[in-house]
Amino acid sequence: MASDANAPLRSGPEVRDRVRWSDVDIMGIVYYGRYLRFMEAAETEFFRAIGFPYGVLSEQHGVWIARVRLECDYRAPAKLDEEIVCRAELQKIGGSSMTFAFPIARAADGTRLVDGTLVLAALDRTTLRATRIPAPLLAALSTAPL
Amino acid sequence: MASDANAPLRSGPEVRDRVRWSDVDIMGIVYYGRYLRFMEAAETEFFRAIGFPYGVLSEQHGVWIARVRLECDYRAPAKLDEEIVCRAELQKIGGSSMTFAFPIARAADGTRLVDGTLVLAALDRTTLRATRIPAPLLAALSTAPL
Amino acid sequence: MASDANAPLRSGPEVRDRVRWSDVDIMGIVYYGRYLRFMEAAETEFFRAIGFPYGVLSEQHGVWIARVRLECDYRAPAKLDEEIVCRAELQKIGGSSMTFAFPIARAADGTRLVDGTLVLAALDRTTLRATRIPAPLLAALSTAPL
Amino acid sequence: MASDANAPLRSGPEVRDRVRWSDVDIMGIVYYGRYLRFMEAAETEFFRAIGFPYGVLSEQHGVWIARVRLECDYRAPAKLDEEIVCRAELQKIGGSSMTFAFPIARAADGTRLVDGTLVLAALDRTTLRATRIPAPLLAALSTAPL
Repeated sequence: MASDANAPLRSGPEVRDRVRWSDVDIMGIVYYGRYLRFMEAAETEFFRAIGFPYGVLSEQHGVWIARVRLECDYRAPAKLDEEIVCRAELQKIGGSSMTFAFPIARAADGTRLVDGTLVLAALDRTTLRATRIPAPLLAALSTAPL
Repeated sequence: MASDANAPLRSGPEVRDRVRWSDVDIMGIVYYGRYLRFMEAAETEFFRAIGFPYGVLSEQHGVWIARVRLECDYRAPAKLDEEIVCRAELQKIGGSSMTFAFPIARAADGTRLVDGTLVLAALDRTTLRATRIPAPLLAALSTAPL
Repeated sequence: MASDANAPLRSGPEVRDRVRWSDVDIMGIVYYGRYLRFMEAAETEFFRAIGFPYGVLSEQHGVWIARVRLECDYRAPAKLDEEIVCRAELQKIGGSSMTFAFPIARAADGTRLVDGTLVLAALDRTTLRATRIPAPLLAALSTAPL
Repeated sequence: MASDANAPLRSGPEVRDRVRWSDVDIMGIVYYGRYLRFMEAAETEFFRAIGFPYGVLSEQHGVWIARVRLECDYRAPAKLDEEIVCRAELQKIGGSSMTFAFPIARAADGTRLVDGTLVLAALDRTTLRATRIPAPLLAALSTAPL
């Protein structure tokens, strides 16, 4: 039985928001940089869902999560007031890194708008250097209910 | 001899920047919230000019500068690619607060676009509570060359 | 029986969102300019709730809504991950203008964080000049169910 | 004589700006999404330098420039008040697309902070569909003095 190389290990909760006035450019479509806010919401809710919101990671485990690589493929434009749906899909876990895909779609018809990817790294809160993913987070990435 | 109640105590350096694609909304004019970036640049350069960039205030004097009141009157729109000019004008000094006006204009013809006002407060870096303006900053606000 | 001069004419739907990583500054509190996104969401949902989302106003009535005055009083800071609640309260209707208050509070304990005010103006979509509020919008501002 | 596969076809003007308060996150380093503003300034100044600012492209040639792919590799963090330098390097020209690299560095010591890449596409201003790069722009991309 073949496995799908791109199948996510885990999928986080769906986040939804509307395209706001401030998201849209002179062409009447979402500015490319503004999709990061949907990705950020989806990423944040993924970590909250597995029990590790950023505050807990920082205060209890001394770790910040930083971004080390970003990719966005823009496939279709979104317009003012359209509802957008996004979720974080964990694709890969390394020693100190995690790779997430962020499919972003128009809620009304499911049209894929953007394929986002982020590589995150665990940083020691004091030195801001890469550090190993704390064991409890590592366990939760694999097994926490979602 | 009459004095002008609105004359600034001090005027900071002029900052200039162009209206970028990300500043402009679907009407083709600068989004109202984006003028804050011109005000921020002008405010920052004022403090740098008198010898107290934020890093120095924080590390040497234990103080952060926070905003406690914002006002903007939008008088005329700016368009893509127009050059904008702004400066910070110190209007009033209190025990822990400073009031600045920010005239924002189109560089090409001097048209006033926005009248901004910010009330800043000195915060203790540790408690984030209002604290007296450090004496060296107070002196520089009045006498540092600009 | 005394009336309250500050009582809103109408209150729009409550909007809720969490403080995101990108909202927070080096002090760990929400950057003053980022509260505009909560105000924008509340304003947008007010107009949608009375049946006049911006797209309808523009396409069916030839009118854009622009901001002509902004005020924010910052009363308490919000931190990473806190849930924020905001709504748009219509305070005054003029020939071409509408004044809204935006109380912004921490959801957990109701602490007031920011008092925002916006004066909006109806603009002719083609000339970008102030125009009278279209009669159907004027009626909806007073009588549409909320 | 060997050619360098990654050597840019053309390099645009250097743009410089300081890291502002609003650029920095709770870790005290530039938020990953904020580097886009340096890339945008560099991209804009590239097109202005070859004689095709966006307004001219739109009004005289009926073309908008849209982003279809974004990549950022984050190599080192930048801090509050540091001066940042960036430029747009044209890497490849296709029928309707242009690929630019954006090296972003700390001005003080030349440390590379981010390697950005953007693929731009020419869009018909009316249909928002991909269209061929207008011939005068194509010529300027290759030969305009920089």
